[in-house]
Amino acid sequence: GQAAAVVDLLPSDLQADLLGQMQADAAEEVLELMQPEEAADARALRGYEETSAGGLMVREFLQYPDEWTVEQVVNDLREKSEEYRDYQIQYAYVHANQGQLLGVLRLRDLLLQPRDTQLSQIMIPSPLSVSSDMNLEETHGFFQQHHFLGVPVVDDTGALIGVLQRSDVDQAWIEQQDRSFLRRQGIVSGEEIRSMPLWVRSRGRLAWLSLNIVLNLLAAAIISNFENTLAAVIALAAFLPIISDMSGCSGNQAVAVSIRELMLGIAKPSDALRVWFSEVSVGAINGVVVGCLLGAIAWIWKGNVTLGLVVGFALALNTLIAVSIGGVVPLLLRKLGRDPAVASGPLLTTITDMCGFFLVLSLASVFVEQLKM
Amino acid sequence: GQAAAVVDLLPSDLQADLLGQMQADAAEEVLELMQPEEAADARALRGYEETSAGGLMVREFLQYPDEWTVEQVVNDLREKSEEYRDYQIQYAYVHANQGQLLGVLRLRDLLLQPRDTQLSQIMIPSPLSVSSDMNLEETHGFFQQHHFLGVPVVDDTGALIGVLQRSDVDQAWIEQQDRSFLRRQGIVSGEEIRSMPLWVRSRGRLAWLSLNIVLNLLAAAIISNFENTLAAVIALAAFLPIISDMSGCSGNQAVAVSIRELMLGIAKPSDALRVWFSEVSVGAINGVVVGCLLGAIAWIWKGNVTLGLVVGFALALNTLIAVSIGGVVPLLLRKLGRDPAVASGPLLTTITDMCGFFLVLSLASVFVEQLKM
Repeated sequence: GQAAAVVDLLPSDLQADLLGQMQADAAEEVLELMQPEEAADARALRGYEETSAGGLMVREFLQYPDEWTVEQVVNDLREKSEEYRDYQIQYAYVHANQGQLLGVLRLRDLLLQPRDTQLSQIMIPSPLSVSSDMNLEETHGFFQQHHFLGVPVVDDTGALIGVLQRSDVDQAWIEQQDRSFLRRQGIVSGEEIRSMPLWVRSRGRLAWLSLNIVLNLLAAAIISNFENTLAAVIALAAFLPIISDMSGCSGNQAVAVSIRELMLGIAKPSDALRVWFSEVSVGAINGVVVGCLLGAIAWIWKGNVTLGLVVGFALALNTLIAVSIGGVVPLLLRKLGRDPAVASGPLLTTITDMCGFFLVLSLASVFVEQLKM
Repeated sequence: GQAAAVVDLLPSDLQADLLGQMQADAAEEVLELMQPEEAADARALRGYEETSAGGLMVREFLQYPDEWTVEQVVNDLREKSEEYRDYQIQYAYVHANQGQLLGVLRLRDLLLQPRDTQLSQIMIPSPLSVSSDMNLEETHGFFQQHHFLGVPVVDDTGALIGVLQRSDVDQAWIEQQDRSFLRRQGIVSGEEIRSMPLWVRSRGRLAWLSLNIVLNLLAAAIISNFENTLAAVIALAAFLPIISDMSGCSGNQAVAVSIRELMLGIAKPSDALRVWFSEVSVGAINGVVVGCLLGAIAWIWKGNVTLGLVVGFALALNTLIAVSIGGVVPLLLRKLGRDPAVASGPLLTTITDMCGFFLVLSLASVFVEQLKM
């Protein structure tokens, strides 16, 4: 009973969030105790994805039939001013008899018009609207293009069912980016803050670290396979972590650009081939540059030109591989319905480490006689 | 001349951005050709930091003296409706004779009141306001706490000088997070998109990669120093990249939480000691867990218990070090006025690699007889 009274007071989008987080039967219990009108709204919103236009829209907005006059609207505002107190009102919406959205009314225009004017004469006709099943990327994109503070939400029949506010979309967008930043760094459980209990914080990080040990062992197994080569050319050991770190870094740059392009809606999973080509050129240039750099350093440092050639060539080729994989992996993960932010990093690092170690060590075992110092 | 005409048409916050990006004398030339009133506004805004309240505020807003009546306001709206067309108007502001902010007026309240009512009677008195020099963190925090669409901006004397809109603050906040995500991944030059010229994209990434080679060499030098130990216990070579990757991963988790807490305003540079203590506990727990895991794996894999102990102990201790450093480094960089997003990663990785390699290899050289297989 008390819960229902509290829920009654919340704006409709928060009601839906709250009820969505409750068990189905507990939510139903609360819904039955709420005021019938509020309960119907909450039920309707509960059916939408939390971050879709339907899930983020509010049901508190002003709508009037097109045949109403300015006078009728002003009277309505006066009568229900208590009820409208907390509405975020800048516009009112004008609808046809069947509920179809016809136009938008700027409240200030009401101030300037004779009281017997019909709404259909002063409304802005055929306003832009969004569909209730648009996702967060799409609605965020909409507000990037249009400088509106809110946009009406319509259902399949064109009927007005809510208003989506820019501030709610921006808020949801920021939260999504925030979550995905943390998950990319291995805080998988969500939003860690240092005031949380120690155990919760440790556990959330350990899940990621344990997975990483397993992946690292795959790469280490390759090194172990070449112990004879390493024993003959011990100087190589110092270059293995460099190859691993540099390739991971190049690959992660490509991952970052892909994740950002996915978020901005510039890249889609079907663009994988285009992205691959685009990264191959960057990878070729950067591979040659960093390969020559590291090769020259290895040659001068260890005084062996073959070592320089082996290390440099391996890094150049592996940079190309890392960048191609890094650019494409987020798109493929998105296509598979996985979160690119969480899975791209470790997948990329494991593959590029394995390739990198294999390249250096197998090249070295071919030229092992020239490498002995 | 043409430039000035174009600039005249922009909203005041965009004018300021644009002029801010021009050379000082070119900007002055444009300012002199602009309409005097617009030029004065633009000049005033140019003095503020781009993302401060003053830099983001708009100067297009409605303000009226407190002794005006509803009738006078409605007449003003009617007369200047053309000029006000593109204003984002939901509120009007009421000021005293000297310009001091006295109250806020909801436009819909104008609809409901007799035309001879004085504004001072229907305004919401003593409204919240922000100071023009508040930074982005502070104004974003303000809008997190208050569900306003806009807030008046006042100068030192309490005079109303502009209106800060939630949408502009959210936009600037998203852009800041977006930029900082890319820079953290090594896209230092800003916002790379794949449609940019190949050369620009390669160069932006290469700056970062070249720096990374140098830092990696510092860690590699430590490995080179222990070539005798490595030659005696060649199995160690497979564990060096694991130590490096695992410590980097633990440290980056702490970096991520610190950067997020800095952004949310939960942590300040002066909290470094508290953050350090808080990370030490997580680092101790996670260090023991991953140390035992990797130690056990090394023991079973290579069949040498001393190898397990050396590798496990080194990883445990280095995890503790990595996490302590990772938590504190972003706060120290912020205190030094550096961007924590860009510099934290490579700094952390270099230090933890050096510590990790030194720990494993120096321990191994102590127990080298027991490690020989």
